[in-house]
Amino acid sequence: MQTELFEFGACEKQGVYDAIYKRRDVRGHFLPDPIPGPLLLKLLDAAHHTGSVGFMQPWSFIVIRSELMKRRVKSVFEEANEAAGKVFEGEKRQLYSRLKLEGIADAPLNVCFTCDSTRGGPHVLGRHTIPETDVYSTCCAVQTFWLAARAEGIGVGWVSIFDPIKLRQVLEIPSHVIPVAYLCVGYVSEFAPRPDLETAGWRARLPLGELIFYEQWGKKTSE
Amino acid sequence: MQTELFEFGACEKQGVYDAIYKRRDVRGHFLPDPIPGPLLLKLLDAAHHTGSVGFMQPWSFIVIRSELMKRRVKSVFEEANEAAGKVFEGEKRQLYSRLKLEGIADAPLNVCFTCDSTRGGPHVLGRHTIPETDVYSTCCAVQTFWLAARAEGIGVGWVSIFDPIKLRQVLEIPSHVIPVAYLCVGYVSEFAPRPDLETAGWRARLPLGELIFYEQWGKKTSE
Repeated sequence: MQTELFEFGACEKQGVYDAIYKRRDVRGHFLPDPIPGPLLLKLLDAAHHTGSVGFMQPWSFIVIRSELMKRRVKSVFEEANEAAGKVFEGEKRQLYSRLKLEGIADAPLNVCFTCDSTRGGPHVLGRHTIPETDVYSTCCAVQTFWLAARAEGIGVGWVSIFDPIKLRQVLEIPSHVIPVAYLCVGYVSEFAPRPDLETAGWRARLPLGELIFYEQWGKKTSE
Repeated sequence: MQTELFEFGACEKQGVYDAIYKRRDVRGHFLPDPIPGPLLLKLLDAAHHTGSVGFMQPWSFIVIRSELMKRRVKSVFEEANEAAGKVFEGEKRQLYSRLKLEGIADAPLNVCFTCDSTRGGPHVLGRHTIPETDVYSTCCAVQTFWLAARAEGIGVGWVSIFDPIKLRQVLEIPSHVIPVAYLCVGYVSEFAPRPDLETAGWRARLPLGELIFYEQWGKKTSE
């Protein structure tokens, strides 16, 4: 594979930005159409080609298709979600109760991205001072999967409202392995033009300029 | 922006996979050519359009261009790297000492991605059970930046060998904000055909099949 001189044409470049800007956290628009096995492998292979600390490749992928497993996972979600909704008050609590926050049963496929902190032995290059970098790498793999899926017209929704211990029990994940991301995956009837939480008025997009500092935290000019 | 019916053409789709497969963790091939300001903003805006837990957008970006700041960051790296190399023994330690692990001074630009765990107030939708999801979102933004940069012919190298407390001091990052990723950013003379650590024989690519389970951890078939 000759990558040394490879430059992206206008169309290839546009594809990357389209994936980034048109990607959505999908909860409500899943279609039941199955995802072909080879296409799922293509997406997982893409995720597997994410960079990782010390080339550790700490991720594994648990692919869930059975109705029984989805029901068990969904009940772990429902238990956590009941408690999670109660921290909000007034209008925000009412809005929360109306939001659709997962597509576990609607999506034909769920994929759990895990991180095995022991993979690569006790010493992993680059993890000496910040051991969480293994989880960081796994999160980068999630984003790779998410963007590749978008390019294929497949929606992904990340569900994070779980007691991780109970999720681990249901999926029989060993205690040294972290269930980092639980993704609902499927073709969709539409990709919403904006994030659901922005449309619902839950929270606004922050202006980019407020998020950029120069040289040190808090400095707004580069002089 | 009409995204509902948007489908990727073959070329746009190829662009996404090219970015994923041709992205590298760059340390040794940076060119000094400056990155135009508008292009940097384009990359940061792309990163800012990553999904985040509860639409929290917990990230900030510290852009570092000054030689003085780079020197200070590099000395934090060197201190940590001396200790990090000592955990390896024999051939591995010799190999470690020959590896180039950062391009802090070589790259015209460094960008630190941070995560503010207090952004969005005490209760962020989706963070109730797994509070680390704010950092997870920030890591996803790093991967977005990395892929968009690759499409622009710009290399990115993630340096993780730092005492995070010392890095925070140098960059004046407040204690409630986590410096998640320190990136060296610049045009490159080449993108290596494979990861440096794979080429150096540090570690091999794991076969994808070993990383996929079905329904539960450890199950190798979907039946």
